[in-house]
Formats: sequence, C-alpha cells, structure tokens
Amino acid sequence: MKEKENIIFGIHPVIEAIKSGKEIEKVYIQQDIQGQGLTELRNVIKKSKIPFSYVPVQRLNKYTQGNHQGVLCFISPIETQDIEDIIPQLFEAGKVPLILILDRVTDVRNFGAITRTAECLGVHAVVIPKRESAQINEDAIKTSSGAIYRIPICKVDNLTDTVFMLKESGINVVACTEKTDQLISSVDFTQPTAIIMGSEETGIANQLLKNSNNLGKIPMVGEIASLNVSVAAGMVMYEVVKQRLNG
Amino acid sequence: MKEKENIIFGIHPVIEAIKSGKEIEKVYIQQDIQGQGLTELRNVIKKSKIPFSYVPVQRLNKYTQGNHQGVLCFISPIETQDIEDIIPQLFEAGKVPLILILDRVTDVRNFGAITRTAECLGVHAVVIPKRESAQINEDAIKTSSGAIYRIPICKVDNLTDTVFMLKESGINVVACTEKTDQLISSVDFTQPTAIIMGSEETGIANQLLKNSNNLGKIPMVGEIASLNVSVAAGMVMYEVVKQRLNG
Repeated sequence: MKEKENIIFGIHPVIEAIKSGKEIEKVYIQQDIQGQGLTELRNVIKKSKIPFSYVPVQRLNKYTQGNHQGVLCFISPIETQDIEDIIPQLFEAGKVPLILILDRVTDVRNFGAITRTAECLGVHAVVIPKRESAQINEDAIKTSSGAIYRIPICKVDNLTDTVFMLKESGINVVACTEKTDQLISSVDFTQPTAIIMGSEETGIANQLLKNSNNLGKIPMVGEIASLNVSVAAGMVMYEVVKQRLNG
Repeated sequence: MKEKENIIFGIHPVIEAIKSGKEIEKVYIQQDIQGQGLTELRNVIKKSKIPFSYVPVQRLNKYTQGNHQGVLCFISPIETQDIEDIIPQLFEAGKVPLILILDRVTDVRNFGAITRTAECLGVHAVVIPKRESAQINEDAIKTSSGAIYRIPICKVDNLTDTVFMLKESGINVVACTEKTDQLISSVDFTQPTAIIMGSEETGIANQLLKNSNNLGKIPMVGEIASLNVSVAAGMVMYEVVKQRLNG
C-alpha cells in the first residue's frame, strides 16, 4: 500500500505536529493501549480541540506500514481561515457578505457537494465546527470538484460564539429549518447574511436556532419529510442569488 | 455470500424472464463466451432494448454461486409506469402536471437524490431512458430515502419521442442548461411542465435542447462552472414550487 503524504504516525511525532500548530483533521488512537506518552497526547488533543477516535489496530495498519505505536493523525489538505478576519475584509471590499454555517454536517460527500454549490453561487466562506464535522479528505475534495481549494473554510471551536460574533458584525443569521411556518423566500437575503444548515441526523442545534435572527423553511408537498442537506443548501443559496440579482 | 432475490441466472432462465415481460434492470454477459443460446439471448435483449454489459466471470461469480452459464440479470425492484397513462390521469384529476426527465443521469446516488427531492417537492413522475440511466438498485433506493417506491418512474425507449408526446399533450418542456442567456426563473412554471436535466458528463442531448419549448439556466457567480445535477435539479424544482405557491 502506498504511504499517504498527509499522515503522521507515532506518539511523539503526532504530539509535535499538534504542538507546532499544524492543521490536524483527525487523530486515530488504537483501542486498549496505555502509556505515559498517551496521557500527554490526550492532553494536547483536548487542549487543541482536535477530533479523535479510538479504532482497532487494523484500521491504523491500513494507513501505514510504519511503527505507528497506536497513533496517527491526518494533516488537513487545506489551510483553514479565520472567519473573524474574513468578515471585515468583505465589508472593506464593499461586498455583501454571504456566509454558510454547517452545524455538524458529517457526511463527506454532503460536505463536498455543499462547498461545490457554495463556490458556484458566490458564498464567501464556509464555517464548520472543529469537531463533529465531515473530515476534509480526498473524497470530500473530489465531490467538491475542487471547490474546497477555492472557497475559504473556517473551523471554529463553538458555533454559537460564531453566531454572536456575526450578529455583532451586522450580519443577519438565518437558520434553514422545518421548525417554522416562515418560508425561506420571505427572508431578506439582500442584506449581509449567514445561513445555517443542520446535521443530517438532528438538524440545527436548539442553541443556534434560538440565537438566529430568522428561521426559514423550504416548501414541501410530498410524503417524505426531509430533503438531503446538500440539496436543501442548494435551494437556499439559489434563493439568495436570485434575490441579490433582482435587488 | 447471500444469494440476492432480485437476480436470475442461467441463459434460458434469463431469456424466459425477458420474454415473460419481467422488468429487467440490466443483463450481465460473461466476456468471451459463445454458443447457440447466447445468440438467442442477444436477440431478445436487442428487441426489448434492455441494457447489458459484457463483464469478467469474476463479476458474475460475485452475485451468485449457482451455475450462471455466463449470464445473469437484475430484476427491477420497482414496477415502472407508463408516462402516456400518467399524463391524462393528471389532467383528469385537475392537477397541473410536473414531470422530471433525466437525460442519461448515470450516477446511482444522483438518481436517488433527485427522486428524493422530486417526491418532497411534488413532482408527478420521473422519466428516464431504458438505456444509459442509473441502475435502480439498493444504493439508489437508499439514497432516495425510499422515494423510488413512492414516485412513479417511467422508462422510455426514446426521450425525444417522449418530448414530442408531452408537447402534444399541452405540456411545456423546459431544458435546464447553461447554453442559454435566459434564467430558469424567467420560465413560467405555473403551466403544465416537464423539466429536463442532463447527464453528468455531457448535459442535455442537442436533439432534446432543440425540441424543448424553453431553455433556462441557473445563475452562477463562481469559478467552478458546473453544479452537481442533483443540486441543480433541486434548485429548479424549488423554483417551480415557489412559483406555484405564489401563483
């Protein structure tokens, strides 16, 4: 098997990678191993809020034939950006910000498809939480048609904090949810906007719904109650572009 | 390996299945085999316009441990319907027909995602060509969230003939394509409508573009030139539902 370039393995190399500030997508730790180094690893992972999973040794062996000591991590294929830097830059450039927030979208293909649509329809940045998000890997890049390389991706510790920051910056935060009577088309998207799309399983967290400026739903007429999140995100972005073209 | 219920194998059983009018999704024929029975098989396949592929014997062995004689076929998990029956039924029921035509959408997940959206947004039937369409299999059903069981699927020999039939029935045929300056939102979707979406590779065939009543495009602003077909289809269906709710 070909050794992947975006993998670092071994307890101390992984700890050093995290400490040096490299962007880590995820850490895999072998189930049922112990030792001094592991305690330190867990501490730096916790401090940096990096996603990690306990996996069988076979899973680790699949990724490397080297002496992984029960630990490996995936380096992010992209350099993520800081949403707090992007917003003022957009305003200074005279743009009307359009931000997409993905609350725990965990399917890699959905994440790829959404970034592809976002790039096509002029979204300025995609914000995801550090944990409970789809891994940014080769499948995501392929499904995105390369859009992941072209659109700023921002990882944040806490989406609620980001929503507060966006609102304070004068951005209207709109949650796309079926838990409202308001149609998404009744929202004014010509103003600076951040759209929240929710997880495949549970939708948008209550904390985010509560702190959004508007809720909006997509009109449904069939018997199956839910749309795929990448399709729903496409419809909302289409609504935004339409309003902005007409406005 | 578990024997699948939706598979028939052996030269004569497959020939009989086709002759009896069973709905066959696809026939697999082993590469480099010959014989009297195969000539007859090829003739009935040709006559019934059933999709078929020549495959290595290993591929056949994956699906059955029985004596397949180099031939097996997949029975359709659904009973397809006849678009020529559906249209008059819709008019008689006082409905404004909304039909979706998929011109050679071959990706199983795209097909599943599109039928899911179509069911959610009230499309009355999905029309696909017998050949060069995604196979209706377990993956398609899963991606569709079961919508494939709930929405009529119609297979036709020739999409151009279907377009002529639809137009003669008073249905406005709209091709969703970037080969126009007209925005999709400028099309009047409150009238009886059939929407054509094109293949992942080459879009809509010229023959169909030429015979459509309207062409419409989705407004794009990014650098990546194309949307995923299931996302684009969602946007157009959203536009239709919005117009019909307002109209």
